[in-house]
Amino acid sequence: MNTRLIFAILYLSSLALLSSAMSAQDVRKPGPPKVVVQTDGTVEVPAQKVPISVFLSPEAKAYVMQHLKDMQDPEIVKQDAGVPRFMKPYLARDYELFPVEKKDQKIGGVHAYVYTPKTGVSAKNKDRVLINLHGGGFSGCWPGCAELESIPVAALGKIQVVSVDYREGPDYKFPAASEDVASVYKELLKSHKPQNIGVYGCSAGGMQTAMSIAWFETHSIPLPGAIGIFCASAGGAFGGDALYTAVPIGEARLASPNAPGAPPPLSYFSGTDPNDPLVSPINSPEILAKFPPTLIITGTRDFAFSGALYTHEQLTRLGVDAELHVWEGLFHGFFYNMDVPESRDALNVIIKFFDSHQGGAGGSHHASGADRR
Amino acid sequence: MNTRLIFAILYLSSLALLSSAMSAQDVRKPGPPKVVVQTDGTVEVPAQKVPISVFLSPEAKAYVMQHLKDMQDPEIVKQDAGVPRFMKPYLARDYELFPVEKKDQKIGGVHAYVYTPKTGVSAKNKDRVLINLHGGGFSGCWPGCAELESIPVAALGKIQVVSVDYREGPDYKFPAASEDVASVYKELLKSHKPQNIGVYGCSAGGMQTAMSIAWFETHSIPLPGAIGIFCASAGGAFGGDALYTAVPIGEARLASPNAPGAPPPLSYFSGTDPNDPLVSPINSPEILAKFPPTLIITGTRDFAFSGALYTHEQLTRLGVDAELHVWEGLFHGFFYNMDVPESRDALNVIIKFFDSHQGGAGGSHHASGADRR
Repeated sequence: MNTRLIFAILYLSSLALLSSAMSAQDVRKPGPPKVVVQTDGTVEVPAQKVPISVFLSPEAKAYVMQHLKDMQDPEIVKQDAGVPRFMKPYLARDYELFPVEKKDQKIGGVHAYVYTPKTGVSAKNKDRVLINLHGGGFSGCWPGCAELESIPVAALGKIQVVSVDYREGPDYKFPAASEDVASVYKELLKSHKPQNIGVYGCSAGGMQTAMSIAWFETHSIPLPGAIGIFCASAGGAFGGDALYTAVPIGEARLASPNAPGAPPPLSYFSGTDPNDPLVSPINSPEILAKFPPTLIITGTRDFAFSGALYTHEQLTRLGVDAELHVWEGLFHGFFYNMDVPESRDALNVIIKFFDSHQGGAGGSHHASGADRR
Repeated sequence: MNTRLIFAILYLSSLALLSSAMSAQDVRKPGPPKVVVQTDGTVEVPAQKVPISVFLSPEAKAYVMQHLKDMQDPEIVKQDAGVPRFMKPYLARDYELFPVEKKDQKIGGVHAYVYTPKTGVSAKNKDRVLINLHGGGFSGCWPGCAELESIPVAALGKIQVVSVDYREGPDYKFPAASEDVASVYKELLKSHKPQNIGVYGCSAGGMQTAMSIAWFETHSIPLPGAIGIFCASAGGAFGGDALYTAVPIGEARLASPNAPGAPPPLSYFSGTDPNDPLVSPINSPEILAKFPPTLIITGTRDFAFSGALYTHEQLTRLGVDAELHVWEGLFHGFFYNMDVPESRDALNVIIKFFDSHQGGAGGSHHASGADRR
């Protein structure tokens, strides 16, 4: 056998080996996954690995990482005396960062905390007050969520904040919370002009804010100067795209769809009619059209974000002054952790919104796009 | 064998069969898919079936369904003489619905179309003009996208719209388009106050709007009264959560991540530096802080939506009057189809924004959150 032939055989053998190795690899490694669109428009999305958003600050990246781990730990999501365990460090930091005086009192017969900044209320805010309606799924997180939503706003905004310990499930049902909020609000109306009062809340508290406006409208109670619906919609389902996009990457779980327009499946709402505008104001254009200036805050990983966007769309369509802010890469209630720059940005947006939309000491209405900072 | 024994054997056999069938089923049917969080925070999201958003109008549901099918048809996304085939019906409807006069002319030496509503320019808009910068990935869609972005705005807004046929790739590279837009704008400044000029565009045109403001700033050209960045960001990557959430359910495909902060991998940008604020204004707080009032429009199925949200966050943080609108369940450039109620809503938002933010005939600045209707 001459050398040339040997090389030719070796060459051909190696080609065959290579080819065989490649086809073995083909079998092991199927083609890239494909997106399939069903005839009804349902999209079959293949499994994906979704990294933390590149747009986040380093602090927010670490925060999202920790949050996703926390959401898979049944122990750390438990509440001790109304404070979810994973929120305790955020609350400890609030106590360090934001000196406020807290008064435990009854207003209009309803239990509430009244927060006053120790550095003083600003001259502009001396006749103003904010009402906070805390999150917690209408069944907890008092006082945890109330403190987290009120302390930074009172201190940074230099304004008094009244957080309402409204009645919740499972002991109470709708409309207990709406009644409690109305009692507090009507009591505050004795000392404040309606335009000098703002109402806001996150999650259940955001929904309750919208539900309270519907309640005020149908009970001939003058409306507040401005409201904030955060991490929530104006009632209705946690449905839409967020169910599939935000829930897995924001809560580290898969969610089941809720019926469109229905209130969340919480005991507080058992027996209610989703078409009742006092339950789901989003379903009543007449009620929505009378909403005061409304700030809406959500994030791309907030399971309520589709509902929040839809609320903003409808308010805008109906001519309401509605302002939307969506934080890329962040989850339901992200601004509870004030050590993250994005949370500070959100707080600044909240404070500026109420500052420019609540009526001033002279009763003037400051609403102006141009003076936003 | 007595009957009892026969039954006992049958009974035991059937139990064995059942048990065997059940364990076969166990193998065939694994438990529900789980979300896994990796140590770096990357989320492994299982395959999902994502329906059309429940929040959409019936027309929008049909539109999304058709769009997802179109995006998988290589023939229908092709362009004939600058008009993508799937956009032709939208354009035909615009010609029916919105009577405008179109003049083909050169402005500042640059080719452009000038659209004037046949029903007349409103008294308020007689000294105003809008500049449209069309979409098309810096490499096409003239005149298709230009017509779709200009005709409804001119007719419904009762305002003159100049759409610029700026130079694109692959024949031209950055900064050809910025130069062309500046030439048109400077020519219009001879007959219009800067506050009476607005600039807007979708997709590449949205990016070019932001890039043009950066260009004007660094070339000492007075800034326009207001701008609109639609279906786009102020430069930078199409990254973030939208890459994983919006691309599959908006474009019916999976996308590869882009480097954070880098311009899109288009020939028009080859050789550019992503840190150049004229390429990616988003990377320069100094440039961004001087932006005029900015309207940002996107959708939850728009691949540019994370970048759009981040742009809004940064503008807000820097004190710019930036207004965000995000349409739930809708995709990149959704408002090209004016038969969908959501598109009309978006058009109304655009018209109202320029109406209230462009300087009036008397030069006054109408910016006001309260009169947004």
